[in-house]
This record gives sequence, C-alpha cells and structure tokens, in this order.
Amino acid sequence: MSGMPSLILMRHGQSTWNLENLFTGWVDVDLTDQGRDEARAGGAALREAGLAPDVVHTSLQLRAIRTANLALEELGRLWVPVRRHWRLNERHYGGLTGLDKKETADRYGEEQVHIWRRSYDIPPPPMEADSAYHPSLDARYADLAPDLIPATECLKDVVVRMLPYWYDAIVPDLRAGRTVLVAAHGNSLRALVMHLDGIAEAEIPELNLPTGVPILYELGDDLRPQQQRHPLDRVVGDPEAARAAAAAVAAQASGR
Amino acid sequence: MSGMPSLILMRHGQSTWNLENLFTGWVDVDLTDQGRDEARAGGAALREAGLAPDVVHTSLQLRAIRTANLALEELGRLWVPVRRHWRLNERHYGGLTGLDKKETADRYGEEQVHIWRRSYDIPPPPMEADSAYHPSLDARYADLAPDLIPATECLKDVVVRMLPYWYDAIVPDLRAGRTVLVAAHGNSLRALVMHLDGIAEAEIPELNLPTGVPILYELGDDLRPQQQRHPLDRVVGDPEAARAAAAAVAAQASGR
Repeated sequence: MSGMPSLILMRHGQSTWNLENLFTGWVDVDLTDQGRDEARAGGAALREAGLAPDVVHTSLQLRAIRTANLALEELGRLWVPVRRHWRLNERHYGGLTGLDKKETADRYGEEQVHIWRRSYDIPPPPMEADSAYHPSLDARYADLAPDLIPATECLKDVVVRMLPYWYDAIVPDLRAGRTVLVAAHGNSLRALVMHLDGIAEAEIPELNLPTGVPILYELGDDLRPQQQRHPLDRVVGDPEAARAAAAAVAAQASGR
Repeated sequence: MSGMPSLILMRHGQSTWNLENLFTGWVDVDLTDQGRDEARAGGAALREAGLAPDVVHTSLQLRAIRTANLALEELGRLWVPVRRHWRLNERHYGGLTGLDKKETADRYGEEQVHIWRRSYDIPPPPMEADSAYHPSLDARYADLAPDLIPATECLKDVVVRMLPYWYDAIVPDLRAGRTVLVAAHGNSLRALVMHLDGIAEAEIPELNLPTGVPILYELGDDLRPQQQRHPLDRVVGDPEAARAAAAAVAAQASGR
C-alpha cells in the first residue's frame, strides 16, 4: 500500500432540534438549511484539499445520512459505496430526549444536567418504555435484538457499542487502502476520537468537535494516528473557523 | 416466509439531457426539477400503497441514485441499506453519446437511428477511445477490468451484463423476504422486465417504461411473476397517468 490510510470524520451540521435546543439523541430530526450549508461546505473543503472518499459510513439517522450525501454531492462522488449502522448513532439521551435544555436545567439543576451531559460514565435517567420516542417503535431498529436497544447511554456506553463497528466495518476498508468518510454525531465521533487518540476519561469532557467540518486522520499500520495532534489541528479547511464552530458548540448545551 | 417477495422497479425521472434531447447513456447528468418531482411522487405512491422497501439497489449514476434517495425520503426510509453497481447503469450509447437526437437523425437517417434505438442486437457505432465521455476517464469505473467497460451497447448487451447482478445481488435480498426497490434506467429495467416476463426479442422494442412510476412485481418461489400481466398493469398509483407517461416517452427519442 503506497499511502497511509486516510480517515475523515464529519459531524453533522445544525439540526432542527439543535435550533430548538432540545435533547435529540435517537430522535430522527432533519438538518436545518444552515446544517445543509455546513455539509456542503465540508464537502467543498475536502474537494479543495484533494481528498476523495472511496467509501462512506454513516449512522441510521437522517441528519448524518444527509450530511454525507450533501458532502459527497459537492465532491461529485454520490456514487461511492455507503454503509449505515446504528452503532454510529448519536448517544441515546434516555429520559431527557425531547426535553428543552433550559427546562431540564430548571427541573434537575444546572449541575446535574452538566453531569449527565459531560460525565464519561453517568447516564441520564432511562427513557420510559411507553415513550413516543422509544426506538422499538422505529422500523429501522426492528431487526435488532431487543437487549441491544438502549434506554439511555453515557459516553462510555457509546464507546462500547461503537467500537465493534470500527473494528469490523471501518478498519477493513482502511486496510484495503480506501479513503474512508465517517459522517456521524457529536458523541459517536467523540467516542471514536477518544479511541484513536487515546484520550483519558478525565479529559474527554473538554473535547468538542466542530459541526460540518472534516477532520483528517492519517493512520499508521497500527491504525493509530501517525502524529499526535489535537483533533482541532486535523481540520480540513480553515482552522480558525473550525475553532470558532467548536467553541459555539461548547457554549450551548449539546444534545446533538 | 409469509408473503411473496416484492420487487419494485423505478425508472428515473426527467434528466437535464432528456430535456435537451441528447443521447445520454453513461454520461452522469442530474435530474431536472421535474425529474425530482417525479421521484418524490413515486415515493408518495409507494407510501399510499403501504409498500416499504427494505433495501435499495441503484446504478452508479446520479440520476438513479437521486431518484432512489428522493423516493425513500418521501417514505421516511432514507436509512435502508443501499447497493450501487455499474451493471444497473443505462445502456452505453457508444458514438451517439452527447449527440442531439435530431442532428443524429439528420446525419444517419431516421431509419438507421430507429434501428440503433430500438433493435435488440444492433449496437450504435463504438465511442472513440479519446472521447471526453469515455468511462475510463471516470473515477467510479477505475476498479473495473478494462475489458468490462463498454464502447457501445445494444439492449442484448445490457441483458448480458445486467443479469449477473440480478442473480447475485438482488435475488438473495428477495430470497431473504425483503421488499426490494431497484431504481435504475429505461434500458437496464427493460432488460430486467424482459427476463422476468419472458418477453420475446421481437416484442421488446414496443415496451416503454414510464419514468418515476413504481412498478410492482410479486414473485413466486421461482422468482418469476405470480401472474402474467403487462408491466404497465403493475404500476403503483394511477395507471392512466403511467400510461400517458409511457406514451410520452415513446413519442420522443429515448436515449435516457
């Protein structure tokens, strides 16, 4: 293999529930017009950098699928093979799903909400079994064993359920020398970055990934980054714009 | 398996080169606004009929991929697995590619053009190796053995190169009990319909499939239609509108 395997991560842009400041998780909301523009801009940044994905992996969620489609269209590569899997889904926000972030803070207290949002291993309260948002009502999860469907997740849970997909589906594409695009979500991508960069549990709360911005990992034979760098220093395109986008995400509550 | 396997065929709607009356073949043109509306209407017809594709197969060409995406969006099922393959591509129009259909008739005579368009086994003249439209210049065909890339095709050639994908990729999905959507092109779908319905070579020239209209095959264990019917009598939605659409296609030269 001539070059190093290239892995491009892309977090979806603004969704309708981001705009309304609701905890989203596994609810299948669409991108806003701004989110679509972010996705196209991410594709344009890849084109300008001469990066051409050979294959794309997404979650089963519309906002990630659409982000991938818009970026690939911008690249003239909507024809590349695509695989979609629930293991790349956003973190399941449990009982917080569908709640306004400000209301939630009023009800449970700022500190408790901060813990649920940012701690590595403390999940929010579980979703009620009769919730209108329960994944068991959604046809796309009909083939899953019921015990796989989460009632709530902390970031640690996302790491545990995401990694099998990394190893079994994404790594073989990288081993075959393909340039791989993963279009997913704030927390499924934080879980992957945590793994790739060996970020400690105590440090991961501070990491915010910018939306709609491609992040490039050039991997060695050990499938770890060749160079140790902060994820924000791996941005394809304008690094200042990406830092501003990440700061904006950090400033709001982040149930993306 | 409880029900019969359901196969839904959908020919893409109007493309920019359909509108300009150019022979298209393997050139990767996009849908027009009308073509997008046709695709959405096809998805709406499936929704109203209670048909939910579990998996989708398309060509490597944007106009078919976009048709599938728009129809699936309309159904809220953009998340279903998708496979794309060159064997579902439109017929390669050889040296006619990119020519205006009227100009072509003026140059070669109406009768000759009719033969190239409609005969089962007489291909148009081959594309020049240095044509700007040659598939070897297109990244999506870079992994194909060079001898697989056509220089021109008659419908018989399309049947021969399409059938392996039918048997190897589509049939296993049907055998697994899935409702399968195939979003493709006038000639790759005519080739499939010819196979399914056992249409004779002498009769296939008269068959025109409507654009953007789902056509439903309920198949038996032999993977042949349970009932002998004309493809236009298998339309999901308004049969009169589909007949009018097919007649409109027949009335124009049809290098879609």
